[in-house]
Amino acid sequence: MPQFENRPNARRALAAAALMLIAAGPAAAYDELVEKREFVMENFVTEQGETIAEVRIGWEAYGELNAARDNAILIAHFFSGTSNAAGKYSEDQPQPGYWNAIIGPGKAIDTDRFYVISSDTLVNLNVADPKVITTGPASIDPATGAPYGLDFPVVSMRDFVDVQKALLDSLGIDSLHAVMGASGGSVQTMEWAAAYPEMVPRAIPVISPGLDMPPYVIGLLKMWNMPIQMDPNWNGGDYYGGEPPLTGLSNALQLVTLNALHFDWADTTFGRAPADEGADPGAAFDAAFKVEAGLQAAGDGRATTTDANHFLYMSKANMTFSVAEEMERIRAKVLFIPAEGDMIFPPFLSERWAEKLRAQGNEAEVFTVTGPFGHLNGVFNIAQASEAIADFLAD
Amino acid sequence: MPQFENRPNARRALAAAALMLIAAGPAAAYDELVEKREFVMENFVTEQGETIAEVRIGWEAYGELNAARDNAILIAHFFSGTSNAAGKYSEDQPQPGYWNAIIGPGKAIDTDRFYVISSDTLVNLNVADPKVITTGPASIDPATGAPYGLDFPVVSMRDFVDVQKALLDSLGIDSLHAVMGASGGSVQTMEWAAAYPEMVPRAIPVISPGLDMPPYVIGLLKMWNMPIQMDPNWNGGDYYGGEPPLTGLSNALQLVTLNALHFDWADTTFGRAPADEGADPGAAFDAAFKVEAGLQAAGDGRATTTDANHFLYMSKANMTFSVAEEMERIRAKVLFIPAEGDMIFPPFLSERWAEKLRAQGNEAEVFTVTGPFGHLNGVFNIAQASEAIADFLAD
Repeated sequence: MPQFENRPNARRALAAAALMLIAAGPAAAYDELVEKREFVMENFVTEQGETIAEVRIGWEAYGELNAARDNAILIAHFFSGTSNAAGKYSEDQPQPGYWNAIIGPGKAIDTDRFYVISSDTLVNLNVADPKVITTGPASIDPATGAPYGLDFPVVSMRDFVDVQKALLDSLGIDSLHAVMGASGGSVQTMEWAAAYPEMVPRAIPVISPGLDMPPYVIGLLKMWNMPIQMDPNWNGGDYYGGEPPLTGLSNALQLVTLNALHFDWADTTFGRAPADEGADPGAAFDAAFKVEAGLQAAGDGRATTTDANHFLYMSKANMTFSVAEEMERIRAKVLFIPAEGDMIFPPFLSERWAEKLRAQGNEAEVFTVTGPFGHLNGVFNIAQASEAIADFLAD
Repeated sequence: MPQFENRPNARRALAAAALMLIAAGPAAAYDELVEKREFVMENFVTEQGETIAEVRIGWEAYGELNAARDNAILIAHFFSGTSNAAGKYSEDQPQPGYWNAIIGPGKAIDTDRFYVISSDTLVNLNVADPKVITTGPASIDPATGAPYGLDFPVVSMRDFVDVQKALLDSLGIDSLHAVMGASGGSVQTMEWAAAYPEMVPRAIPVISPGLDMPPYVIGLLKMWNMPIQMDPNWNGGDYYGGEPPLTGLSNALQLVTLNALHFDWADTTFGRAPADEGADPGAAFDAAFKVEAGLQAAGDGRATTTDANHFLYMSKANMTFSVAEEMERIRAKVLFIPAEGDMIFPPFLSERWAEKLRAQGNEAEVFTVTGPFGHLNGVFNIAQASEAIADFLAD
C-alpha cells in the first residue's frame, strides 16, 4: 500500500488526492513530537529455522504505559508503510503519521488512556528513509561484511510478529489491549491473534484479506514483483554498490498505487486531460494522458527510497500468509473495517471471514468505510470508523 | 481481454476454468464451418488524417443476408480477440468462437433470421495466428518494403469503425439491425452508435466502459504496456527480423489475464497450492504458488502469437476512446450487459451511462451476468443474457 505523505514527488503528482484528503476532515497532529527508537535482538530464529545474527527494527509510541503494563495497543504497518502511524518526528515534517486522524488525546484510540506502540517490520521497503530502521536483504551480513542480498532468509508474517513480541517482552508487556493495522498491517494483526491468542483479546484488521492471502492477490503480488525482476539493474538481487533497479521499482510502485486506488480517484484527480496541454494523446504514439504522467511521477518519486529486494521479500511474506488452519486458536473479538471500492481486498473478504469466526463462537463485526480512494479509504478515511473503533476498544 | 480458446498452453494452465465454462451450459457449435474472408481497401485515411496505402482485414459471417440487405448484425471483437465469434473454421478446431453460446440457429442471435458479420480490427494482436488478417505496425509498408514499426500511424476506434463501414459498403449494406461487442468490442459498438447513428438502431455493449475510457483504465492500460516497453528486445518498436520481446509480452498478457478475471476464479482454479508439490513457497525465494505458475504459462503461451507493437497500438486506441461529447447524436436503444465482479469495467459504469442516455431520451436498459470470472463473465457466461438479447433484438 502506498505511503504518499512523506514523498515530495508523489505528493505533487497526487496533489488533488491530498486536497480531497484534507477536505475529508480535520487531521490535527498528535500533539507531542514523536521519538523514533530502536530495538535490537541477537540470533533471531525465523519460522523456517534460519538464524539472523542481529535484527534491528525501529519503533515509536504514543501515550503512556500504565503501571500494570496492560494498556498497550500494537499497530502494525502496511506493505509500503513505516512505524509512523501518528504525529511528527519534527515540526517541519509535512504530514503526520498515516492514521493520525484516529490516534491521539480524545481520539478513537485515546492516548490519554492507551499506550500505542507502532514498529517498523522486518524487510521494510523504505530502506533509504533516514527514520526507518529495519533488517533485510539490504542489511550488512556480519559474516561477510557485505549486504545479504538474496542470501537473506525468506521471512514470514510470523517472523514479523515474533520480532514485535520480543520488543514487547523487552518492555515487560505480556498482554495487549488490542492489535490493529491496515492492509499488510491487518495481516500481522490476524497473525498475532493466531500466534499469541492469550495476548490478543481484540483485533482490528482494516482493509484486510481475512485469515489468508487470496490466490488472486498472490497473482497481483507476482505482477508487482515483475517489473523489478525485469530490470537488468536488479541483477538477480545483486545490485548493492551498483545502480539500483529504479525503473523496475517505479513501475512496481505504480502498479501498487493504481491497485490501491479507484475509478473515482482517477476521475477526480486527472480526468481525461492530456499530460501536456495541447499534445493530443490520439495524435502521437508517445503523447500521454495526465493519469499516466501522474502514475509515473508517483512511482519515480517513491522508487528512490525503496529497496528492490525488500519489496520482493515483503511480497513473499504477504503471499505466504495463512492462519486459516489456526483459526480455532483465535480468542479475540474482531472488528473488520473494509473499504468500499477496494480492489485488493474487497469487502466481501471481511464479511466472509467475520462469518467464519462467528460460526466458531468469536465475536466478529464489520464496519465499512467509504470514499473515492478504493483500498486507501482504509487509510485516508479511517476517521469514519472512529466511533466503531472507540466502542470496540471500550469493552 | 484474453482469448483462451485457441491457445494450447493457456488452455492447459486454465484447464479448471475451461471445465467450469463447459459446466456452465451447453455450447453446441454453430453448425456450419465458418469461412474466413478478406476485405481490402486502398488509401484509407485515418481520423488523424494519415493515409495507409492498403488496409486488409479478415471477416466472417453466420446466416444469410436477406434481399433487402437489412438483417445484418455486426459483432466487434475485444482487445485480444479475433473475428471468430461463433463456429469453427475446421472440424479439428478445439473450441468454437467465443460467443458461440448465443450465435446460431434458434439462439439469442438467431442465424435463421439474422446475417451476423464479425471482423478483425486494425492492429489486431494475433498477428501470428494464421486465421487473422489485420493491418498495423507488423504489416509491410509498401513505401519501404519493410514492416512499419512505430511509423504506422496511430489509429483510433473511429478508424476501426470506418474500416468496418467500408466493408459493409462493399456488401451493399447501408443499415444494421444491431451492433454489439464485448469489452473493446463494446467500445467499437458505442463508437458505431455515435459515428453512424442512422445505421445503428440497436446497440448491445457487453462488459463496457460506457461512452468513454475511464481514466483509471487508462492507467491500467499504461501498466499493461509497461512490461513490453521494459523488454530490451522491444527496442523502441524495431524488432522485426530480430528477437521479439516475448518476456515483456508474456508479462503484459499476464496482467491482462489477471485483471480480466476474479478472486473466485483464482480460488477455484488454483487455491493456495504450491506450483511444485513439496516445494513450500515459504521456504525459498524462488518457490512459487500454483497461481503464479498458471499465470506464467498463460502469458508465455499467448505471447508467441501476439505482436508487441500491435498490443501497444490497441492500448492507444482504447485509451483515446470517447464519444461522450457526441452522445446526443446516438439514436440507438441500448442494452448494457455488465458482469458481476468485473474489475476492468465494473457494472456501475453501465448503470451510469444508461442513466445518462435515458436522460437525453434514449431507451437504455441494463442486464447483469454473474459468475466467478469477473470481466470474462461477459464472454464465458453470456448465455445468461440470451433471453434479454433475443427480446431486445425482437422489436
